[in-house]
Amino acid sequence: MNQSNSNYILTASCPSRIGTVDVVTRFLCESGCYISELNSFDDELNQRFFIRVEFAQEGSGKFDEKAFKQGFGERSKAFDMEWELTDKSYRPSVVIMVSKYDHCLNDLLYRYRTHNLPVDIKAVISNHEDLRSLAQWHDIPYHCFPISHETKSQQEAQVQQVLDDSGCELLILARYMQVLSDSMCEQWSRKAINIHHSLLPGFKGAKPYHQAYDKGVKLVGATAHYVSSDLDEGPIITQGMANVNHTYYPKDLIKKGKDIEALTLAKAIQYHIEKRVFLFNDKTVVFERS
Amino acid sequence: MNQSNSNYILTASCPSRIGTVDVVTRFLCESGCYISELNSFDDELNQRFFIRVEFAQEGSGKFDEKAFKQGFGERSKAFDMEWELTDKSYRPSVVIMVSKYDHCLNDLLYRYRTHNLPVDIKAVISNHEDLRSLAQWHDIPYHCFPISHETKSQQEAQVQQVLDDSGCELLILARYMQVLSDSMCEQWSRKAINIHHSLLPGFKGAKPYHQAYDKGVKLVGATAHYVSSDLDEGPIITQGMANVNHTYYPKDLIKKGKDIEALTLAKAIQYHIEKRVFLFNDKTVVFERS
Amino acid sequence: MNQSNSNYILTASCPSRIGTVDVVTRFLCESGCYISELNSFDDELNQRFFIRVEFAQEGSGKFDEKAFKQGFGERSKAFDMEWELTDKSYRPSVVIMVSKYDHCLNDLLYRYRTHNLPVDIKAVISNHEDLRSLAQWHDIPYHCFPISHETKSQQEAQVQQVLDDSGCELLILARYMQVLSDSMCEQWSRKAINIHHSLLPGFKGAKPYHQAYDKGVKLVGATAHYVSSDLDEGPIITQGMANVNHTYYPKDLIKKGKDIEALTLAKAIQYHIEKRVFLFNDKTVVFERS
Amino acid sequence: MNQSNSNYILTASCPSRIGTVDVVTRFLCESGCYISELNSFDDELNQRFFIRVEFAQEGSGKFDEKAFKQGFGERSKAFDMEWELTDKSYRPSVVIMVSKYDHCLNDLLYRYRTHNLPVDIKAVISNHEDLRSLAQWHDIPYHCFPISHETKSQQEAQVQQVLDDSGCELLILARYMQVLSDSMCEQWSRKAINIHHSLLPGFKGAKPYHQAYDKGVKLVGATAHYVSSDLDEGPIITQGMANVNHTYYPKDLIKKGKDIEALTLAKAIQYHIEKRVFLFNDKTVVFERS
Repeated sequence: MNQSNSNYILTASCPSRIGTVDVVTRFLCESGCYISELNSFDDELNQRFFIRVEFAQEGSGKFDEKAFKQGFGERSKAFDMEWELTDKSYRPSVVIMVSKYDHCLNDLLYRYRTHNLPVDIKAVISNHEDLRSLAQWHDIPYHCFPISHETKSQQEAQVQQVLDDSGCELLILARYMQVLSDSMCEQWSRKAINIHHSLLPGFKGAKPYHQAYDKGVKLVGATAHYVSSDLDEGPIITQGMANVNHTYYPKDLIKKGKDIEALTLAKAIQYHIEKRVFLFNDKTVVFERS
Repeated sequence: MNQSNSNYILTASCPSRIGTVDVVTRFLCESGCYISELNSFDDELNQRFFIRVEFAQEGSGKFDEKAFKQGFGERSKAFDMEWELTDKSYRPSVVIMVSKYDHCLNDLLYRYRTHNLPVDIKAVISNHEDLRSLAQWHDIPYHCFPISHETKSQQEAQVQQVLDDSGCELLILARYMQVLSDSMCEQWSRKAINIHHSLLPGFKGAKPYHQAYDKGVKLVGATAHYVSSDLDEGPIITQGMANVNHTYYPKDLIKKGKDIEALTLAKAIQYHIEKRVFLFNDKTVVFERS
Repeated sequence: MNQSNSNYILTASCPSRIGTVDVVTRFLCESGCYISELNSFDDELNQRFFIRVEFAQEGSGKFDEKAFKQGFGERSKAFDMEWELTDKSYRPSVVIMVSKYDHCLNDLLYRYRTHNLPVDIKAVISNHEDLRSLAQWHDIPYHCFPISHETKSQQEAQVQQVLDDSGCELLILARYMQVLSDSMCEQWSRKAINIHHSLLPGFKGAKPYHQAYDKGVKLVGATAHYVSSDLDEGPIITQGMANVNHTYYPKDLIKKGKDIEALTLAKAIQYHIEKRVFLFNDKTVVFERS
Repeated sequence: MNQSNSNYILTASCPSRIGTVDVVTRFLCESGCYISELNSFDDELNQRFFIRVEFAQEGSGKFDEKAFKQGFGERSKAFDMEWELTDKSYRPSVVIMVSKYDHCLNDLLYRYRTHNLPVDIKAVISNHEDLRSLAQWHDIPYHCFPISHETKSQQEAQVQQVLDDSGCELLILARYMQVLSDSMCEQWSRKAINIHHSLLPGFKGAKPYHQAYDKGVKLVGATAHYVSSDLDEGPIITQGMANVNHTYYPKDLIKKGKDIEALTLAKAIQYHIEKRVFLFNDKTVVFERS
């Protein structure tokens, strides 16, 4: 295949019924598009269909996104499909929120700097000054909005202003140690990813490594999930884990957990950007890559 | 969907060109078949297309395999497709070859006995008597064909006779410690799976755990692969591994490796039966299930 | 070293203070014992010391256990040590309790049969008849004591009778789906190991795989722990895990989890028998072998 | 225990004989030292004993290293011990060599910057300019010594000068893509760690990910080992691995492997610094921490 053309990802989801795959693949075929990878799944308990297709238009002509969307929109209407067309070269605008821990931020910025995380990082926002120089070395604007019980809503307004100004499409909470308000969770539903430092639903809330130590578990982990107004209850995207033993005091668990937290968050973001993640009924379908 | 009907798996492979997915999915749609899972992959370096579809016919009528095959055969002819239709409830006839080690055999028989390995085990063949009672407790015929340098070709004829008589479709070498002849390898090409107790291509040949010990590696593993006439060089289906350290002498590696060998072989067989494995250019495409 | 003599394991635990290691190692040296492996750990938060030593007496004389115990008892008295001397060749008497699931039982019996689990299995007890033939093929007495709400205490008396008669030293709950009474938990404290099919403390109680499915987790696991009267709250010995995804319905999680449950239980038993596990404050210190 | 005093690590190795543990532990006890962790191992095939002890002197007095060394030296003489006393707070001087890939360097510098890698990085040396700004942001001198076939020995002299000037105690090859000369390997024997991007002994030499792709393996890995004059044959310290499948072209394997390479190298360095690694007969004994 001529792979010099742009590559696209088409994702769609709808109630289960016959013809769901066909309506997608026939349209692609008729549009002269070559499918390089396709995954579909039918959730038989929820009667819900999910599909993800990577494709490229054959030939030398420019791909007409508008015509594609109009055409596919008409075709798929009868299936009540939620669908999205994504240019694989598109890099969504991202804002990262942090507090004082820098392991996730450092990992994300490294991937970004080396072109291994195809996003456009518009800003880093923190409630502390600590990580300013790290952001600045990467030429990324850093906003420090301190927070106190009294100023919480005001601080969120500042945050929201940055998100609005930067055209943020994905908000990443990279060990941001504050709870977002319900309204903010609502507004960023499906568009905000958090990393929690435990294998949820175990050890929700504060100090999960201390909870893990008290419980004497033999493995710890991290969970990347979409943010929801129920703290640490949002839809899980991916999880990672590491073996530990009795020689790990809480401070050691905290240290050991950093690598797995950073890797798990990066993986979730990658899956999100590559449109591998579908949300349905507070759970995810993830066409992951092993 | 009405899942009371039989479920089928359609697998196909052909040179890459536009319309490969469409020719499959359109035919399924027009035949009233609902797709519950689909995976396709286009190998862009080899310009080769692979697809695996699970589907069920809608409605109350009986699925007409013959008509389906004829219809799809005509449709797909232009694509030079190699394809196969498999009834998900079909249990292929299997023969297992062993020597004295029983961990893989025991594991396979357990899965078979508890209906977790959808095969029909026709016979166990060994060059030793040791595992007869294990096979017999599972009501499986056990053939002991001793082997010596002089009797090798004669012994293989005996083996082949059992394979022929039993209508064997898949030959499993579950730690069979003899090398098959080239002609036998040829004949069972793509239809014989071996488990080797190392992470191939490391430690080919005899006593891989002793080789691993001498080398001081910190992890050992097992490789399930299709048998080929190049010893331990056949296409790899799946691999498993386990951490070890300096306290593991060769006898300990042998002991520790048993679990991972059994799990890796069982996984490969499961993938083979579920038609998740494609062979091309001495390598595999495996639509694995994480 | 002359390893033809018996090998022994000495384990001890006491409050932290200077000289704890020395009192052990000096006595061993003076007794002509060669240490082949030693691990000690000092829990600095709990000010508690743990030590495990494998040793063999040098020379051709027979090891005098009684003299050793008397001598070490006197030496260690000042340290308020809890200690134990174990002959490595000693195989403790074990009783296994099951219900209908056989994957853990099958795995344990296989290891037992092939001399990879150094125990003496005295009996299998179940509240169902299903697994009788499996036990019998291994020549192990099988007791079926059905249970109902009314007969629970009576059934436990029957169980206790078997445990008493067999001189049971370790009770293994290999997916026994009944809750033991508080008094029974009390009596078998530190001497009963259970396998729970989740990563505790997540998903306690009934149907953990269904809970895991509902929650949409991306990895499932198993926890082997000592039985306590708080259901699924006993000290954790070891945990195992496996990756899963959206294609796993509860029935698939149940099936996938079987391997990890069996491996995790077997590992915990091995650690227990090899005296690698210490209990303190409802948690364990485990000198595990990677 | 009073942990305010300095903590020390004593490591020793000698031929196996009775009393090896005792000579260590008795001296520590008599010197008023409290042992917080001890691991010993006796290699029964090689008749070699290894021990590692973490301890702290009790009380308020300053630990007299010189007296300790003199005293222990005398005591241990009869055992032909190789031994070393290490202050846990000591940070060895380190030089890192790189070429163009920065993932390992970035990871090491991050751990260094956040005080999670207790070394003193004296310099980064490269044969290219590419990674200068990364080193400089961490305030570490960067030396670029280009290399060609003609200038190889001259370049090594430059490298050696930096190592000498900086008092380098550990040389880290963090994806340095040049082969060191035999004499340099000899000189830095036991003091230079390399990361190779395969599971050695598989895929030695150049382009291991391409080799892995051609072979169709289902898992890739990384090996951290001491440098020796036999390329990629030095004693293995630790290994890491990651699952891959048919969708990974060589460029994807390269990308995926970066995380495991960085983690594996960092782990090996940590083990080396914490004196967990012993070398004997071209293999290692590693008292690893799970």
